[in-house]
Amino acid sequence: MSSTNLTFPDAATHRAWLAGQAALPAGFRVGTTRFNFTPQEAPKPASMTLTLITLDAPTPDFAAVFTRNAFPGAPIIVGRRRLGEPTLGAILVNNKISNVCAPGGVETAERICAGAARLLGLEPEQVLPSSTGVIGWRLPEPAILAALPAAVATLDNTSVLPAAEGIVTTDLYPKIRRAAVGAGSIVAIGKGAGMIEPNLATMLVYILTDLAVPRDTLRTLLAGAVASSFNTISIDSDMSTSDTVALLSSGKVPCSDLAAFEAALGLVCRDLAEDIVRNGEGVHHVVRVAVTGAPDTATAQALGKAIINAPLFKCAVAGNDPNVGRLVQAIGKYAGKDAPGLDLSHLRASIGGIEIFADGVFRLDPAKETALVAHLRTAELYASAPDATGFFAPPVRFPAHERTVEIAVDLALGNAGATVLGADLTHEYVSENADYRS
Amino acid sequence: MSSTNLTFPDAATHRAWLAGQAALPAGFRVGTTRFNFTPQEAPKPASMTLTLITLDAPTPDFAAVFTRNAFPGAPIIVGRRRLGEPTLGAILVNNKISNVCAPGGVETAERICAGAARLLGLEPEQVLPSSTGVIGWRLPEPAILAALPAAVATLDNTSVLPAAEGIVTTDLYPKIRRAAVGAGSIVAIGKGAGMIEPNLATMLVYILTDLAVPRDTLRTLLAGAVASSFNTISIDSDMSTSDTVALLSSGKVPCSDLAAFEAALGLVCRDLAEDIVRNGEGVHHVVRVAVTGAPDTATAQALGKAIINAPLFKCAVAGNDPNVGRLVQAIGKYAGKDAPGLDLSHLRASIGGIEIFADGVFRLDPAKETALVAHLRTAELYASAPDATGFFAPPVRFPAHERTVEIAVDLALGNAGATVLGADLTHEYVSENADYRS
Repeated sequence: MSSTNLTFPDAATHRAWLAGQAALPAGFRVGTTRFNFTPQEAPKPASMTLTLITLDAPTPDFAAVFTRNAFPGAPIIVGRRRLGEPTLGAILVNNKISNVCAPGGVETAERICAGAARLLGLEPEQVLPSSTGVIGWRLPEPAILAALPAAVATLDNTSVLPAAEGIVTTDLYPKIRRAAVGAGSIVAIGKGAGMIEPNLATMLVYILTDLAVPRDTLRTLLAGAVASSFNTISIDSDMSTSDTVALLSSGKVPCSDLAAFEAALGLVCRDLAEDIVRNGEGVHHVVRVAVTGAPDTATAQALGKAIINAPLFKCAVAGNDPNVGRLVQAIGKYAGKDAPGLDLSHLRASIGGIEIFADGVFRLDPAKETALVAHLRTAELYASAPDATGFFAPPVRFPAHERTVEIAVDLALGNAGATVLGADLTHEYVSENADYRS
Repeated sequence: MSSTNLTFPDAATHRAWLAGQAALPAGFRVGTTRFNFTPQEAPKPASMTLTLITLDAPTPDFAAVFTRNAFPGAPIIVGRRRLGEPTLGAILVNNKISNVCAPGGVETAERICAGAARLLGLEPEQVLPSSTGVIGWRLPEPAILAALPAAVATLDNTSVLPAAEGIVTTDLYPKIRRAAVGAGSIVAIGKGAGMIEPNLATMLVYILTDLAVPRDTLRTLLAGAVASSFNTISIDSDMSTSDTVALLSSGKVPCSDLAAFEAALGLVCRDLAEDIVRNGEGVHHVVRVAVTGAPDTATAQALGKAIINAPLFKCAVAGNDPNVGRLVQAIGKYAGKDAPGLDLSHLRASIGGIEIFADGVFRLDPAKETALVAHLRTAELYASAPDATGFFAPPVRFPAHERTVEIAVDLALGNAGATVLGADLTHEYVSENADYRS
């Protein structure tokens, strides 16, 4: 579970909690607008939301981490250039179309940045573009340029919630995390859903702080926070072309305790990463795998990822079926394929604290089976049922709780470890990604 | 499509075709029996089929390839020992329980082999055991020993069909391929369904031939045939603990043309591998990815596997949605994560012969979209619908055709290539592996 271990009986309670998280740090404003358009590649009406995040004054103190996918979107190509600019003044995000490998995509992104800059009194190079959505289509540049004034008109310094809502695609609800550090704060918003792993995702995360931390320190701290949060999660092993985590400081509040800032940043990122998994496409169960006793961290993390990405095990979890054979299969597959020679003879594995495997053999009995099923049921977010057409849609648009399936694997070989977060594989995931009712 | 490009209007036609493939090579007999028992770990009634494949005389000429999963089943451990024995006289297969990491599993397998050997006039070391099914449970040893005489009593030298039916688990139909070489033949049977990739699968394949080929040659030829067939397929990226491909020669017919034998063995393996994909759990579409222009074969094969294992693309194929963005995402993920520095700037990709990507940008228009949808629909094996409880079961128990989704990726970097076979990700897969109606 996350550091907060929250439960929400209904969407309204969740919404109220989000609103309580949403106060903007000093020096930021956000605005959004939504408009309809017709994509060139698939001439059917669609709608897009533009989200603007602006600083009262451009800041030299910003950091960003981008996808390692070898076909990065145009905003990623532009964003990498922006890291070399002296200051940043705004982020402009669109959903619906990700502007990846579209003809002239980089030039389009730059022209849209220039359009926003004109309205905001900035230089084009002070605007960071972000796009998420369909890969391969072209952005509706004239429609975006025409909609920008409306987004600027809504800029407001009170709540980040409109931005958290504006950037989503198939997410069921907005995601916000905050932490206070002295007189300042860190507020982060994120969208995710599918195509999440490893080294970022169809994931856009914007972290805003009024605490004054210089650029180089921000960049070091962000890299560390991402490594132990967003890079430890996987919904489905796919890796987006558009992943972005950006961190901006308005510098309005002196930061007297850098260690506290680093800890708060790490916590915000870990909790938000878990939120993104929990609201992954079709997720019924969040699965946490803690690998210990590994010879090195890379092995621990790779073994954990192998477990949370094993389709048959993911399906079993979806069905509240403690299919421990599939868990051990996934471990053996990883070792046999990617870590030959890794000694598994002393491996111990447990689910929900219940030992299921030790010293090369399963430790199973009917009583344990019953307890394992109970653990899986406790961690279930919702039970599903198809509608009359066989389409599975999630029945809830809020996270009922933050409980997780807890898997522990001890290799008993060394002192390294890693914890990774994944999810089950469900009918809702297939419906979201295979079934269309348009 | 396979080398035969068959179509079957109904199950009876498919069955008749199978019967025509099924004549046993000289020197072999098969027998089966089915019985009920109660597993110790989950005390509910279950049933198991034993399948015996025997030689009229033990042969020195046998070969086998096993899973590389680091938690191999007890039959794999025993089977690796058998490779060092001077002769083999029988194979004994059970389904339902795979005897993997069960307490005392190796000793149990050896005692069962000894029981079969007594009935067949063999030494225990002349019997190769095979098991498939649930991982982690113990074999019902007394029930198996009690059932063995019934299997022996049915031994018959006419048709391999009873064995092809006896070894299945969640397969929808038996799978047989044959080839003639001069006066002799090669007949192969296989079971698969899920947990298939890479380097074998929950896959058991037995290849029988009356052609006299010496042990060392057989083993070399089998390794080559497996590399270009069973090791190029993936249903779901999972790798079973029990995969086995065994090849036995009775030596009854002189083999005057070893090149013809090698070619026939390769063809039988490739077609049977494709059969196994086509009958994979929940498969609606078989997807063939041909990678060319690669710097080396390993890169070509890994890139092909990355495409056929990308969940979002697999879901899109299931929905007859030519989501080319997800295809390119999968390529970029592979390159970014596993092949940094691979030059993708000249990559060209097509689906069904229709170019969709070249020189860094998509080549899409509405007419192409229509043609791509038509290609996907042509390759669809069946459309699905849930029953009243939301459970998706395949509506057919035969392969309607052998058409495939054809994806071509040319890296334009070198002369190496590889072709891999995969499948889509469907509600039937999730129902099979997450939903239970016990």
